[in-house]
Amino acid sequence: MQRFITLTAQRRMIKVGILGAAGYTGGELIRLLINHPDAEIIFANSESNAGNKVHDVHEGLYGDTQLEFTGEMPFDDVDVVFFCFGHGKSEAFLKEHTIPGHVKIIDMAQDFRIASPTHDFVYGLPEIHREQIKKCQHLANPGCFATCIQLGLLPLAKAGLLYNDITVSAITGSTGAGQKPGATTHFSWRTNNFSTYKLFTHQHLHEICQTLNELKPAHSPHVIDTLNEGFQAEGITVDFIPYRGDFARGIFCTEVVRLDEQPSENELVARYKDFYNDAAFTHYSDKSLDLKQVVGTNKALVHIDVFGRKIVITSIIDNLLKGAVGQAVQNMNLMFGATEQAGLRLKASAF
Amino acid sequence: MQRFITLTAQRRMIKVGILGAAGYTGGELIRLLINHPDAEIIFANSESNAGNKVHDVHEGLYGDTQLEFTGEMPFDDVDVVFFCFGHGKSEAFLKEHTIPGHVKIIDMAQDFRIASPTHDFVYGLPEIHREQIKKCQHLANPGCFATCIQLGLLPLAKAGLLYNDITVSAITGSTGAGQKPGATTHFSWRTNNFSTYKLFTHQHLHEICQTLNELKPAHSPHVIDTLNEGFQAEGITVDFIPYRGDFARGIFCTEVVRLDEQPSENELVARYKDFYNDAAFTHYSDKSLDLKQVVGTNKALVHIDVFGRKIVITSIIDNLLKGAVGQAVQNMNLMFGATEQAGLRLKASAF
Amino acid sequence: MQRFITLTAQRRMIKVGILGAAGYTGGELIRLLINHPDAEIIFANSESNAGNKVHDVHEGLYGDTQLEFTGEMPFDDVDVVFFCFGHGKSEAFLKEHTIPGHVKIIDMAQDFRIASPTHDFVYGLPEIHREQIKKCQHLANPGCFATCIQLGLLPLAKAGLLYNDITVSAITGSTGAGQKPGATTHFSWRTNNFSTYKLFTHQHLHEICQTLNELKPAHSPHVIDTLNEGFQAEGITVDFIPYRGDFARGIFCTEVVRLDEQPSENELVARYKDFYNDAAFTHYSDKSLDLKQVVGTNKALVHIDVFGRKIVITSIIDNLLKGAVGQAVQNMNLMFGATEQAGLRLKASAF
Amino acid sequence: MQRFITLTAQRRMIKVGILGAAGYTGGELIRLLINHPDAEIIFANSESNAGNKVHDVHEGLYGDTQLEFTGEMPFDDVDVVFFCFGHGKSEAFLKEHTIPGHVKIIDMAQDFRIASPTHDFVYGLPEIHREQIKKCQHLANPGCFATCIQLGLLPLAKAGLLYNDITVSAITGSTGAGQKPGATTHFSWRTNNFSTYKLFTHQHLHEICQTLNELKPAHSPHVIDTLNEGFQAEGITVDFIPYRGDFARGIFCTEVVRLDEQPSENELVARYKDFYNDAAFTHYSDKSLDLKQVVGTNKALVHIDVFGRKIVITSIIDNLLKGAVGQAVQNMNLMFGATEQAGLRLKASAF
Repeated sequence: MQRFITLTAQRRMIKVGILGAAGYTGGELIRLLINHPDAEIIFANSESNAGNKVHDVHEGLYGDTQLEFTGEMPFDDVDVVFFCFGHGKSEAFLKEHTIPGHVKIIDMAQDFRIASPTHDFVYGLPEIHREQIKKCQHLANPGCFATCIQLGLLPLAKAGLLYNDITVSAITGSTGAGQKPGATTHFSWRTNNFSTYKLFTHQHLHEICQTLNELKPAHSPHVIDTLNEGFQAEGITVDFIPYRGDFARGIFCTEVVRLDEQPSENELVARYKDFYNDAAFTHYSDKSLDLKQVVGTNKALVHIDVFGRKIVITSIIDNLLKGAVGQAVQNMNLMFGATEQAGLRLKASAF
Repeated sequence: MQRFITLTAQRRMIKVGILGAAGYTGGELIRLLINHPDAEIIFANSESNAGNKVHDVHEGLYGDTQLEFTGEMPFDDVDVVFFCFGHGKSEAFLKEHTIPGHVKIIDMAQDFRIASPTHDFVYGLPEIHREQIKKCQHLANPGCFATCIQLGLLPLAKAGLLYNDITVSAITGSTGAGQKPGATTHFSWRTNNFSTYKLFTHQHLHEICQTLNELKPAHSPHVIDTLNEGFQAEGITVDFIPYRGDFARGIFCTEVVRLDEQPSENELVARYKDFYNDAAFTHYSDKSLDLKQVVGTNKALVHIDVFGRKIVITSIIDNLLKGAVGQAVQNMNLMFGATEQAGLRLKASAF
Repeated sequence: MQRFITLTAQRRMIKVGILGAAGYTGGELIRLLINHPDAEIIFANSESNAGNKVHDVHEGLYGDTQLEFTGEMPFDDVDVVFFCFGHGKSEAFLKEHTIPGHVKIIDMAQDFRIASPTHDFVYGLPEIHREQIKKCQHLANPGCFATCIQLGLLPLAKAGLLYNDITVSAITGSTGAGQKPGATTHFSWRTNNFSTYKLFTHQHLHEICQTLNELKPAHSPHVIDTLNEGFQAEGITVDFIPYRGDFARGIFCTEVVRLDEQPSENELVARYKDFYNDAAFTHYSDKSLDLKQVVGTNKALVHIDVFGRKIVITSIIDNLLKGAVGQAVQNMNLMFGATEQAGLRLKASAF
Repeated sequence: MQRFITLTAQRRMIKVGILGAAGYTGGELIRLLINHPDAEIIFANSESNAGNKVHDVHEGLYGDTQLEFTGEMPFDDVDVVFFCFGHGKSEAFLKEHTIPGHVKIIDMAQDFRIASPTHDFVYGLPEIHREQIKKCQHLANPGCFATCIQLGLLPLAKAGLLYNDITVSAITGSTGAGQKPGATTHFSWRTNNFSTYKLFTHQHLHEICQTLNELKPAHSPHVIDTLNEGFQAEGITVDFIPYRGDFARGIFCTEVVRLDEQPSENELVARYKDFYNDAAFTHYSDKSLDLKQVVGTNKALVHIDVFGRKIVITSIIDNLLKGAVGQAVQNMNLMFGATEQAGLRLKASAF
């Protein structure tokens, strides 16, 4: 009988360092990278956990790795470093530390998501920036809500169809609130519960508006305006209601876009399919969606319904994967010329 | 030592019959009525369960009652009969059966919620119809989503502030889908999941629009229009996205109302407080809400936030109580001159 | 038409003070007492929350009460004070404060559950101590696990059938872990999860063994032994595995008792029914149990199955009610001669 | 710059057919195989779903595969066929159909788990039967509870330490109950609930006892006895209480084993570590366990605590993976000489 053999080829591995490796995104990144065929973790830095086994801190890794957290940061040994810090700490870190020029940076925080002359970070949404990502040295990974909301709106933005205020509802799982225990992540409170927070003022609105303005046709006068403090927008606004859901993983988003006349649903669907035709993980679905279609995967699914002059877009992602480290690994793959899906062919949780 | 004594007074009890007593609403009604100080269940009708103990069918009643389902309908022995049928069956039942004229009817279904010359059912929303309810013989109990959405919008409707399309998101627990097992109530599917259904077309829109038009000031030209099949509304529309939530009980609703100029938040809050000043179970909250504030109770809580020209209203209820049989018992109390809160002083689940 | 009238009689109310009123048990106690027909809260003490509205701290009370926490402790104004402290603080409190002799004390903590010449607290399990409770001045309310496990074993203990080691598995909801957020009550960790803790060493074993030894027939040589640190028991042991469940409320307990010969199942069932014949809230069920039969109520349900020489007992309670403040209110009712069920006719959550 | 390249090598793929592909195990098998580096699905048979897209039936596959269900069974085109039938149908199928001799069979049902002269199926628990599995043509995949319970007991069985009755509690997620909706899988009932079923009589006891007897030392007189209907065992019994948990995935098992004298914990731990030293997916953990350490993976984790003469073993698996199709793919890998972990390097769900 002919034997079936799993080949293991010699290849050049991407050498990875992780800062802030003991947090939620750090943990999920490690869970991805230990199975990545083209990458290896050189160090996982956490001062407070230095010397501890990674599997004693991060659920689900027991038996898979003997990796330990380190207090060291041997940048010379790596090709890329992931910043898994809380927001605001990435910029502070770079002021206090020098990272060798050849080492690429992928920042999970929001510090460099807004373009500025003061930095060279590329906003890492592959669906619109694939070519820039491939060439960049420093990458700002998009926010979770921001990813999900943008993927729902991008084809309309490009078509110049965002010229009235947009109403967005997006429900996130508890992992969006991070690892630190608190009142709204206490199981006894959150289970069977539902609530809103940061109505109309969520910080991700900045990056969302940046992208929507970037994509709008040159002739369109309709600037998407991040609401100022007095909520007196000059242009179109994205009116975003974030909800806390009664589950751990995923973002479920609906977006209502109003046009001035009734569009052709077929044409709109064709626009969406065309827009995401080359996307590695974002797909248009002809059927309505439920969150668990993407939980556990790096996929985003998008669906639209048209009612008269209104379009309801549904978009869903796993907040820790396509909304965080899955997209970061996708970006890493692009930055290093690896297959875009490498390490991201994940079994959907499904249940 | 002086003894503390719980008084039991002789009083005239409201004699209740229940049709469709083996379903979810039937069960919850029984759970309420067995502790109601002024009512007693004379019969609980269910043909398929005739002879079975109520506590063997309905969770949570073991040890509390020896009541059995009956196949009989002794209408002469009761003051009021609750119709806990599925939608459409109440009207059919009344065509085939004669209920004595002195027996009041409280219908849980949607069959008689829309006013018509062909019937005399009063729409039983006590916040606006208390006096009619007190005098009526036949009452149509409002729908769960309809109750929650209306309670959020009523003060604005009365003030004539509903003159642009309204965007409503409302999430319901699984008990809203009834007792019959199906794909979207399978635990393995629904747990950790989230989805939408009946976008822009939910059947409760009819009763919602009926009430909003009833309340609008005489001078206001802005008719609230239930969308026709082609979604070409003549007037203002309520654009309602219903969601299936990952919990069993409760409705959490947000409603975005757009004005043409920025309102005074203080004035709006005062309107809400004033509107619900006399309501037995509906309260305005100065703080933002979470669903478990009302779960297990007959309360509705309402809160508003104002952002520029937009008002975001949050309204919450327990779908089986204020959204169904709790409100029905409240209506029964009004119809029989009992204290409005009788039998409805319920401990909140809280957890 | 004859009017139906809800009577309100003049009666002497039990005046209640609460210490530690801002914790979980304090909150649930307040939820019960605000609807208690024979009791009124005179003060709810919490230093850290003094001046705050109770409804801003405890879920589910908005619209029901304007009660505020106080930093004062006006003992002279009350008939009874509930100690809702964490374990160990009740004893310390009594050393530092003098409570007037006429004021009864109900202690929720474990400080006085074990009988001792140094105190006069009665162990408040009404199923065995009703008469002592009625007469006592100071009462130690049983632990949640302890209540559930004991109610499963009491009839066998009394019959002298506990003469081999007993294996107990009991699963508790997250509210058993209290209000303070921590790793094992973080929603992201606990949802969909399951774990054990304090295997064979749970602190409630002491009160369980105390009761079992108290009930055993005089002729029985089989002392129930709380395992010492070296786990070298002299007598029979209760081998208790506590589990953390993926829900907020309730304890589900199975107990395996081994006999030396096959018992008569009918006789055993008769013993259980007889034992709980007069119990206000504890019932034997002929059918197997599920937890939600008691959630939201003060009930305990017990069921047995016999397999050869082994008896499997299932017992269930709501950990915050029969396992804590529900039982405390039941005890208060007994202590003041009120109806045992007063304030405890609660609608089961069911869903 | 050096390019990083993901190699795709030419290799001989294992060609797979699936019968009963529309059920839960069929779906999870497809989720695994579409990412398996050494296997490809040739056909997924389901008569009732013939022509339907697999991604329209099985959650989480949208965008990953265009595979359709077929009503055909082209056995000549495959190397192996998985039977994902309900229990009892595998044997019936084989009586009515002829499968070519070169096609291997992996049966997910219990039909051939008990050895018999009438069939040649090998019981596919790699931890004890790896060599037989490698050579076998027909394989009976173990049951979910059976896998978890056995992995907890195997090292003790081999050491001859199972000579007193064993008490087992094991909690399963709702996916263990299959795809067909029913009363105990209705979300409204199951959420926040807990219950037992099939006490002491679960069908998996047969395969568990078969293995334990197979492993026991030749000199040991202690036969493990599957209880007969009268529950009058001749030998040692496994007293198994199965629980329905409030989650979708996973089995959490505790097993209490009683010895006649106190064992050395160190020696026992060494036995466990030694026993699973070569296991690809089963590991001994020095720390106590929680279920989500294995959910989403093919791993089993085992931990022991010793209390006097009693050993408490905790063992955990994902019921759909190590408890079903994950183990089946592991077995397929062994049967075809592929790497044992191929296609099973799965990211833990963790949350």
